[in-house]
Amino acid sequence: MSRPSHGGNLTWAANLAGCPVSALIDFSASINPLGPPESAIAAIKNGLRSLTHYPDPNYDQLRASLGQWHKLPPDWILPGNGSAELLTWASWELSHQRLTYLITPAFGDYWRSLKTFSAQVKPCPLDLTPNYGELSLNLALPELTQERAINLNSAGLVINNPHNPTGKLWTRAEILPYVERFGLVVVDEAFMDFLPPQQDQSLISSIQDYPNLIILRSLTKFYSLPGLRLGYAIAHPDRLQRWQQWRDPWPVNILAQKAAEAIIKDRAFQAMTWDWLAPTKAKLWEGLANLPNLTPLSGAANFLLVYTNQSSSQLQENLLKNYRILIRDCLSFPELGDRFFRVAVRTQADNQRLLDGLAKLVNSEQ
Amino acid sequence: MSRPSHGGNLTWAANLAGCPVSALIDFSASINPLGPPESAIAAIKNGLRSLTHYPDPNYDQLRASLGQWHKLPPDWILPGNGSAELLTWASWELSHQRLTYLITPAFGDYWRSLKTFSAQVKPCPLDLTPNYGELSLNLALPELTQERAINLNSAGLVINNPHNPTGKLWTRAEILPYVERFGLVVVDEAFMDFLPPQQDQSLISSIQDYPNLIILRSLTKFYSLPGLRLGYAIAHPDRLQRWQQWRDPWPVNILAQKAAEAIIKDRAFQAMTWDWLAPTKAKLWEGLANLPNLTPLSGAANFLLVYTNQSSSQLQENLLKNYRILIRDCLSFPELGDRFFRVAVRTQADNQRLLDGLAKLVNSEQ
Repeated sequence: MSRPSHGGNLTWAANLAGCPVSALIDFSASINPLGPPESAIAAIKNGLRSLTHYPDPNYDQLRASLGQWHKLPPDWILPGNGSAELLTWASWELSHQRLTYLITPAFGDYWRSLKTFSAQVKPCPLDLTPNYGELSLNLALPELTQERAINLNSAGLVINNPHNPTGKLWTRAEILPYVERFGLVVVDEAFMDFLPPQQDQSLISSIQDYPNLIILRSLTKFYSLPGLRLGYAIAHPDRLQRWQQWRDPWPVNILAQKAAEAIIKDRAFQAMTWDWLAPTKAKLWEGLANLPNLTPLSGAANFLLVYTNQSSSQLQENLLKNYRILIRDCLSFPELGDRFFRVAVRTQADNQRLLDGLAKLVNSEQ
Repeated sequence: MSRPSHGGNLTWAANLAGCPVSALIDFSASINPLGPPESAIAAIKNGLRSLTHYPDPNYDQLRASLGQWHKLPPDWILPGNGSAELLTWASWELSHQRLTYLITPAFGDYWRSLKTFSAQVKPCPLDLTPNYGELSLNLALPELTQERAINLNSAGLVINNPHNPTGKLWTRAEILPYVERFGLVVVDEAFMDFLPPQQDQSLISSIQDYPNLIILRSLTKFYSLPGLRLGYAIAHPDRLQRWQQWRDPWPVNILAQKAAEAIIKDRAFQAMTWDWLAPTKAKLWEGLANLPNLTPLSGAANFLLVYTNQSSSQLQENLLKNYRILIRDCLSFPELGDRFFRVAVRTQADNQRLLDGLAKLVNSEQ
């Protein structure tokens, strides 16, 4: 069985660790360890009796709930089979732009969807040069400032905020000038809900000013339901209506629909997650920073990117074989290669097991 | 609220009937009334604990189960988020053919997916002329025989077997000559599993001889799980690998995956369905044929198409308002218009309520 090129392939990892999938501690997928909320499981169980019906192809009730949550009219929101399904249609539109700028390192699924429809892609690399303990991200997108001459009106831009895998958060004020200049801008906010309301930098509040803006959101990371598939796009109603005519009529299954309606109202779970994340992430960051040969970046989401001066895939293998711990190597991000790994923030106890395992491995291998 | 252009929009119907959705008797969606099987519900409940994981992007276990069922190597099978999702990718390939022939009347989703990618479509109408009590289907596809001169090697063909909405079943021997001649052939067998094994006319047994053939199958109609979304394509591994690279990585949710693995082994449910369908359908057909002004076609699947000399949408409305019964008008099939309706075969008791309701309405309106 070969090493999978994307995160989350637990079968491969369990084989290597010589244990069942359930015995793995999975730091590779950036999923909230506190979920799924009971409200989701209750809604799914209640929904079982609806499985004999097709979903409402307009998803009126779900759109109304999401609209209420985001203070938007329902027709500005389109639910999808995970945000990955919506990314496919965003990329079909991007493929009709002259060129699409992609901030790199980029989530592999952006490459996948843009290649599907043969979009012209121009990578815009972030400056990730490791600087003896400090990693700086250059926000100026140098590729763009150098090319003021070209007409960005007919170009697309794909940006991920907070950015995966670095965890970098751009402010609204930093992104909006690009929305002003580009023909079509996709902002993937899959991890934005991990930020408490006072730190939120979502562009949702600006969406009605920009018909050229598409925001993608996920409900499966914060609410720990990646197996259920659930995301949504926020964009001008004309665009979303077009997507609805293009795609299959019932992409969101009824159980995902019922769960979504329940979880966005689950204020207790949201508060619990925000209360857990900030101190737990700070402690994990500190633990990583205190280990020799590891340099964690500070990250706004529920994961940390770590620079290491040894092979991260070797480290991954050793953690699996010795501790049944799965970290995310960064081989699928060619700009990062074998010197970075990514870990989700998990419970305090799990994080400590990771730090203990790393302590033995990074010391012993120097 | 306007009349929906597709089947299964129960909210619209419940509003018209002045009752909750659960009080409707739904003859409009062709779903097995005996399901979902208990094996499916048990598998879904067991699967709830897996929701915190992403699905295996290769769906190895599900493909192995489906492969075993159909006696095919697993890489000839690709599961999808309903066969509608797979139809999207089939149509992306069809859009690269010079022209695609479509047997009409055609399921609306064929038009949707072909339009998405601006495929050139040539409708091939079946002969549905009502002939005072007899409706004949012309199998010779006259459009094709008249155009022998054109090069079918670079053309696509979409065929539905058994055919929706007529219920017509073509034999393997009737379809294979077209598979020989066309560049790319999509055979949608969404209703084929309603035929007991000895009557089955699936092309699955021939798939390994035809790299230009795509077979689409559904698991949601026979097993009454349309809300769960579950279908699969059977085609050459190179083609399916291509689709996998194009589409989002996790289109099938984990609960659908678990349910699928369970239901295809549920021989008891399969036998029960076959035992129920043949006599119940015969009785419903007879009841319809005995009513004045109605002419049911004989159908191989779990639904019947009925010709009526009055407005079928008016009949639909009257059945809803007076009996909370929802039939499928055929307005979304422009070739049929307002003189046909389609009904699913339901339980004996439900079918009798339909016949009783129709008896009052078709008599009173003459």
